[in-house]
Order: sequence, then C-alpha cells, then structure tokens
Amino acid sequence: MALDEVLIALEMLGTFAFAVSGGLLAAKKGFDLVGSLLLASLAGLGGGVIRDVVLNQGVPTAFAQPVYLAPVVLALLAVFLRAIKEDRLRRTLLVFDAGGLSLFCVMGTYIAHTAGLNPVAAVLLGVTTAVGGGTMRDVVANEVPQIFNPDGVYTAPAFLGAAASAVALELGWFTGLTAVLVAGVVFTIRLLALKFGWRIPLAVLHRARGSN
Amino acid sequence: MALDEVLIALEMLGTFAFAVSGGLLAAKKGFDLVGSLLLASLAGLGGGVIRDVVLNQGVPTAFAQPVYLAPVVLALLAVFLRAIKEDRLRRTLLVFDAGGLSLFCVMGTYIAHTAGLNPVAAVLLGVTTAVGGGTMRDVVANEVPQIFNPDGVYTAPAFLGAAASAVALELGWFTGLTAVLVAGVVFTIRLLALKFGWRIPLAVLHRARGSN
Amino acid sequence: MALDEVLIALEMLGTFAFAVSGGLLAAKKGFDLVGSLLLASLAGLGGGVIRDVVLNQGVPTAFAQPVYLAPVVLALLAVFLRAIKEDRLRRTLLVFDAGGLSLFCVMGTYIAHTAGLNPVAAVLLGVTTAVGGGTMRDVVANEVPQIFNPDGVYTAPAFLGAAASAVALELGWFTGLTAVLVAGVVFTIRLLALKFGWRIPLAVLHRARGSN
Repeated sequence: MALDEVLIALEMLGTFAFAVSGGLLAAKKGFDLVGSLLLASLAGLGGGVIRDVVLNQGVPTAFAQPVYLAPVVLALLAVFLRAIKEDRLRRTLLVFDAGGLSLFCVMGTYIAHTAGLNPVAAVLLGVTTAVGGGTMRDVVANEVPQIFNPDGVYTAPAFLGAAASAVALELGWFTGLTAVLVAGVVFTIRLLALKFGWRIPLAVLHRARGSN
Repeated sequence: MALDEVLIALEMLGTFAFAVSGGLLAAKKGFDLVGSLLLASLAGLGGGVIRDVVLNQGVPTAFAQPVYLAPVVLALLAVFLRAIKEDRLRRTLLVFDAGGLSLFCVMGTYIAHTAGLNPVAAVLLGVTTAVGGGTMRDVVANEVPQIFNPDGVYTAPAFLGAAASAVALELGWFTGLTAVLVAGVVFTIRLLALKFGWRIPLAVLHRARGSN
Repeated sequence: MALDEVLIALEMLGTFAFAVSGGLLAAKKGFDLVGSLLLASLAGLGGGVIRDVVLNQGVPTAFAQPVYLAPVVLALLAVFLRAIKEDRLRRTLLVFDAGGLSLFCVMGTYIAHTAGLNPVAAVLLGVTTAVGGGTMRDVVANEVPQIFNPDGVYTAPAFLGAAASAVALELGWFTGLTAVLVAGVVFTIRLLALKFGWRIPLAVLHRARGSN
C-alpha cells in the first residue's frame, strides 16, 4: 500500500522532471505553447509508453490514466511562469533530465519485474524506459540525443540504477525507501558526470594508437 | 452500416491525403520511387499504426488489411503523374497534410472510443493519430515537424476536432455526417492558419518582457 | 528441428551484422562505448522489436530472450578490437548493413507468416523488419536513412527477398536452405547496387521532361 503510493509519486515526479526538460528544450528552440506541450509530453510520457508497448499488457498507462498528463501540464506551467536565464537553460534542462533518468530507470525495472520479466530483461527495459523519452525528445527536436553522451556519461548510471533495482527486487529488498535511495545515487552520479565532464573511453584501441 | 462505410471512406481519404504529403516531401528531397513509397507509407499509415499499437488489440489495421496500401499507391501515382510547380510544392504538401490531419483526428478518436477508451484518453489518442504519421514523415526526412508549427497552428485544430468528436460520441451524435462536418471545420481552421500565418504565443512572460 | 536451428542462427547472424553497422556508425560519429552499445542495439534489435510489437503476441523476443544481446556485444567487440581504416569505414558499414537487410527480410517474413499473417501482410512486415532497425539507427544518429537510397537501391532487394520468402512459404518450399539462398541473392543484389551505384528512377515524368 505505502509502497504503491511512494512508487506512483516517484513515477509522477519522473514524468514531471522529464516534462520540464522537454518544456525547456522547446523554449530554447522557440516553439510555441502547443509545440512545448507536445515535446514535454513526449519527454515525460514517451519512455513509459515504450515500456508499456513492449510489455504488451493493454493500453499504456499514459493513455489509459489521463492523470499522467497532470505532471506534464504542471511542468509546462513551471517552465513558462518562471524567469529562466538563457545562459543557464541548457544546464537546468540537463539537471531535470537527470531527475527523470534516475527515477525512470528504477520505476521501469520495477514495472517490468512486476509484469513477469526475468531480471536481465527487466534491467534492459528499465534502461530503455529511462532513456526512451529523452531520446525521442531530442530526435524530434533535432538535437544530439543524450544517450550519445555529449555532456558526460548518461546511460551508464541508468544501467547501474536498473541493475541495483533488479537485485533488490530479486532479494525482496525493494521498498519505497530503496527506490528513492537508488534513484538518488543515480541522480548524484549523473550530476557529478555533468559537473566534471566524466566520460568513458571512445574506442580503446584508437586511444592507445593515438598515444603512441 | 452506412456509418461504417462512410468512416472507412474517411480513413482511406485521410491515408491518401497524408500519403500525398509524404510523396511530395520525397519529391522535394529528390528521393527515388521506392524512397517515396516508404515516406508516403510512413505518412499515410504511421499514425494509424501508432494508434493500433497503443490500443493493443491485435495486428495494426495497416498490416492486417493490406487494402490500406491502395490509397498510398494511388497517392504516389497522383504525385508522379501530374506536373507540380516547384514553387507551389511546399504549399500543396501542407494542404494535403491538413486533409490527413483533419480526418485522422476524428477517426482516431472514434476508433479509440470504439476500443473502449475513456473520452479523455480517446482525445489524446485521436490527436496522437492525427499528428503521428506526419511527425514520423518529417523526422525521418529530417524536416522540422509540423507539430512545432513552423507554418502556423497545427495540433490545436486537431485537438479541437478530437474533442468535438469525443463529445459527439458521448452524446450519441456521432454519425458519418458529424464526422465529415468536424473534419471540414478542422481542415478550414488549419488552412486559414496557413494562409494568415495564425500563431499562438511562444512564452507569455517572455513576450511581455520583450515588449517592455 | 533443423529448420528452427538454422533460422535462429540466421536471426542471430542478421542481428550481428546490423549491430556491426551500428557500432561502425558510432565509431564514425565519435560516440563512446555506451553510446556505441545503444546504437548497435538499436540497429541489431530494433527491426525485430518493431516486428514483434506489430505482431502483438507478447513481449518482443529481444527483451524476452536476453540471449539476443550476445550478437550485439560480439559485434561491438569485433568493431573495437580490429583496426578499421577510416577511409573504408563507410563501405564496411554498408556491407554489414546489407547482411542484416538480406537476413531480416527473410526472417521477418517467416516470423510474420508463422504468426498467421496473410502473405501480403507478411511481406510488408518482412520489409519493415528489414529496414526498421537501420532506419532508427540512422535517424537517431542524424544520418540520411538508407531507405532513401543515398548509396543505391536498398528497399527494393529487401522487398524481393520478402516476396520470394512468402511465395516459398505458401508453396511449402521454405527450408533453412531456401532461406539462406534467398538471403544470399538479396545480399548479392544489394552489394552490386552499392558497387555499381544502381539506382531507380526519381520521378519518371520529371526525368522525361528534363530530357526534352
């Protein structure tokens, strides 16, 4: 009961965070209000729709339960009502995107596990859920998707969070608290990656060759 | 019976209109016949495939009933057999796109309602059906999607048409005639938006600031 | 029994080939290891996921059976462990892409047929499976998709292979050997199209007009 309520709150929060990232990208691109609504919906709800389409268990939650539009609308209000300095727009966008990423890698893995997927598949679908909405947001708005790490490692922390969630689910340790903790660690890693420009090797041999 | 026939005709007409838009975009981009066929199929059938995948009730109509390829092939013939002046290509494309948009927002909402979705969800899926094919067409061909309104309001009239259809369906007023009427109004609004460059605000506060 | 084993091998081989194409494109774009893994997964598994989502019969194989990640990981190892001359990268990419295309047009049609689709629908889904992963790879990496034939005919040989497979399936001639033969012919045609720059007409009337 309490678990379910915490998890629905986390799902809503992740939707809100990704929707803010979509709204900010729309603002940066000069889209109007309806274009912003669509980009925010794609970012906030897209990952969950992909997840539910793959799980193949009825109409995706984002369509079946229109209450999931609420965090999207709230996100748009938040974007349009506050003054955002142009020079900070990109950084703010990436922080909210990191929030969505960290919450959705946990929630996606949990929902995939609940639907009966084996742990490896649940991790894969968790990662897909986490990166799906943001990738569609970037592709539709013609930006380089964050999955290709223009601003530091992105999918790796999501993978870590999904794997940790799968282990916790297998061991029966998955609670609202674990979920928040794992998401918090993923969020922190992603923010540190952004701040310090953490990267991972391009092509090991290529680098070795270059250093000769 | 008569309703079904009218609605199938409208679905076919919408597919034809969107497929023409895809064929024209392919011509503008210099794609060959097979590339045009794919872009026309994506534009004409893509929205309906997304709709059916979300509804999760078996194989999407576009695949299960290959007769839906007929309007796509007809559209390609129409594009390649007639002389289109280069300077009118973009405008013609947008008019056919408007035809697809207005028919699919009505039909998508109707099919979602028939599949048992609640009115709000039916409107959301109707709008998604209406803008889905055109957006995939533009993304794959690397154009700015019409949902971001480079040529005037686009999604707003589709939303209006979907909402009007949902209300008509709830009240039992949905007939072939209503469907045609609603689609006609949506089409007219979209054409007026194109002609007069109707726009909606970007970011209210931003504009207010700019006017100081 | 033997048929099933051959077909699973062909599916794995096609996944490997497409995944190599994704890994090579990631190398060309300067993506890091995780970005490469994602692009290779999208290329190698994307077409099959679209196919399974359309067939609507449970969780797509790529997620349900994580063993399909093995060819993707192998492909990435192959890309990163061997020295690829920069000037041959694009050509090598297109050869592996041709391998995936030829195997997936056969396998996609076979799986669609097995799922109960009529021959025309099976051909359509086979072609979609064959071109789907590569198209998503190119769209996400912001390249011109091969379906628009920048390097010679692409979808036409896949269509031929899907049609031949459907005929063989209808006549009861579909075996592991037929599958390999059809895929081999498609692969050969695609390579010849690449080597000799085979193209098909743009717009027949347009060309005729131009030659006046």
